[in-house]
Amino acid sequence: MRSELHAVVDRLVDSKQLVLGAMVHEFEESFAAYIGSKHCVSVASGTDAIEIALRALGCEGKEVLVVANAGGYGTISCLAIGATPVFCDIDPTTLLVAIESIAARVTTDTAAIVVTHLFGLALDCTLVDTAVRAKLGKSIPIVEDCAQSHGAKVGNLRAGAQAIIGCFSFYPTKNLGALGDGGAIVTSDAALAEHMRNLRQYGWATRYLQERPGGRNSRLDELQAGFLSVFLPHLDERNAKRRAILKQYVASGASAIHAQFAQSDQYVAHLAVCTVNNRDKFVENVASEGISTGVHYPYLDSEFSTTKHLTPSTLPVSEMAKSKIVTLPCFPEMTQSEIELVCQAIEKNNQFFEAP
Amino acid sequence: MRSELHAVVDRLVDSKQLVLGAMVHEFEESFAAYIGSKHCVSVASGTDAIEIALRALGCEGKEVLVVANAGGYGTISCLAIGATPVFCDIDPTTLLVAIESIAARVTTDTAAIVVTHLFGLALDCTLVDTAVRAKLGKSIPIVEDCAQSHGAKVGNLRAGAQAIIGCFSFYPTKNLGALGDGGAIVTSDAALAEHMRNLRQYGWATRYLQERPGGRNSRLDELQAGFLSVFLPHLDERNAKRRAILKQYVASGASAIHAQFAQSDQYVAHLAVCTVNNRDKFVENVASEGISTGVHYPYLDSEFSTTKHLTPSTLPVSEMAKSKIVTLPCFPEMTQSEIELVCQAIEKNNQFFEAP
Repeated sequence: MRSELHAVVDRLVDSKQLVLGAMVHEFEESFAAYIGSKHCVSVASGTDAIEIALRALGCEGKEVLVVANAGGYGTISCLAIGATPVFCDIDPTTLLVAIESIAARVTTDTAAIVVTHLFGLALDCTLVDTAVRAKLGKSIPIVEDCAQSHGAKVGNLRAGAQAIIGCFSFYPTKNLGALGDGGAIVTSDAALAEHMRNLRQYGWATRYLQERPGGRNSRLDELQAGFLSVFLPHLDERNAKRRAILKQYVASGASAIHAQFAQSDQYVAHLAVCTVNNRDKFVENVASEGISTGVHYPYLDSEFSTTKHLTPSTLPVSEMAKSKIVTLPCFPEMTQSEIELVCQAIEKNNQFFEAP
Repeated sequence: MRSELHAVVDRLVDSKQLVLGAMVHEFEESFAAYIGSKHCVSVASGTDAIEIALRALGCEGKEVLVVANAGGYGTISCLAIGATPVFCDIDPTTLLVAIESIAARVTTDTAAIVVTHLFGLALDCTLVDTAVRAKLGKSIPIVEDCAQSHGAKVGNLRAGAQAIIGCFSFYPTKNLGALGDGGAIVTSDAALAEHMRNLRQYGWATRYLQERPGGRNSRLDELQAGFLSVFLPHLDERNAKRRAILKQYVASGASAIHAQFAQSDQYVAHLAVCTVNNRDKFVENVASEGISTGVHYPYLDSEFSTTKHLTPSTLPVSEMAKSKIVTLPCFPEMTQSEIELVCQAIEKNNQFFEAP
């Protein structure tokens, strides 16, 4: 795609507007259309997306429900705006937030709920809303964190279009990744979109006049928007490649967390996360076959020194999962021989995998 | 420079590290060397640079001295970290912060002083420090805001290398501009540099473990770093072109604020700001000659709705300047015939210019 990337640079150099220009506008339009939301507000990163979404929902100084097993981005966004993250535990089979944990921890003090669609699997947000209404008699705004679920669906709705706001990261390794940092927020609420557009550029009412508290500088680069517009038409096909890789791992005996979803195009297989016994030995064995692994994630957000002052939450499932998860290579650029190498290593080390 | 820009894209595509990789590292090294500081920490924008610098100096919740005539970036950075901006007035001839105003407003509650080197002219920071020490018997950390003064000098020191921390923006219109947003912080204090490197990436002690409060995501893109490395060797020559343009305007009768510095290579002529009577009429007249003008800046930071709750400062010089300043075109890409067109407009409208 090198010549298409050069063409993006040429278009920028020839343009008169190097920041928030035509390429950002075009990408926002096409990404909103792809997700099925009315508006897209692009920003500088996925973490900024959650931060700006939570600000627009008025969460400063209030409680926000998050999970503790998603790498810290939701928690860091809360802390950045002076909100208090309240950690929910996860479901042992999907590793997504447990509805009963949300039901237990949501209160009238909760300002928003961040639902993280982890590893490529989107949670049905109506389950969250139903549980909240059953307890409180009213809804609480849900922010879908879709940093790992570009293109995933629940029924006919894409992740990001289920709730009032959806947040995306375009970090290079994402299902839709830029060549650097970037992010976006989608919503079908025009007033919220306008508010968030305003917050991403200093909270300006008009140029140089700050009107909105919490306004900062968080813009997606024109270049990254141009690259993303080149990549977006390939997203579904690339997601299918990710699923096909996961299916081969499952056929070889890997206990992938989301194995049961590998047949469904609702699932986008961002990461091939498995559970193993004796992870250190497993990692050592497959490393000797030339295969890199990761742990997503090695720490819970509740272990940060920045969260230790908070009321402790008991997170037994998150704790247990943390000790057993391991991530195998899964990205669309993998060759068939690379995939087969991983499959052989899975077969040789079948005894480490836990029954799903 | 199109082929050099394409080469930057090619290098990124061929590299294995798309974020905080070799091109960021190389640019940080060469920019620190150019400024004359030991360390450079690149970040996502100039506003983020000031925010991260103030966090690293422990300014959260404390008072920070800023000017009100510099477009709001210093003030917005203060508000973003919960610091209170305390507005100082400016010198009527340079429009830079007035030393006597700093002396009047600095107290033992002041956590830092942001010195903005506006329009390309660097203020001698020893004057600030001397005034502070005379009043308080101790120094207060100074953050140099060099967003408009890349390459400017005071004696042998570049702007950014005078004080403990210097902050830069690489917004495209800057003297050193990227093709999108970017920024950097320079310091010769190794511990501060490490602290700021940490804050720009979530406050991670190790990957995925937040240790530092206030950590967020603020990284310079590899691509932008690569472009900046292409542009940096041309900075001095481009600054000379800016000065040459300003000199021609002054020779034609423009009352440029910094006319007296146009001969000095210590000054980098970021903007050709003049003072005029009856600005609306002047702008209309030169617009009829095809010349665009600007006002840097049309609002004082003390007028923001986000600052109105603060103790009001009397800023008579800032108020007066705001009503009379107008910015003429001044950028290195201007052709000689474009420059002459502006000079003719200046001559035709000589009656509007105020004596400097």
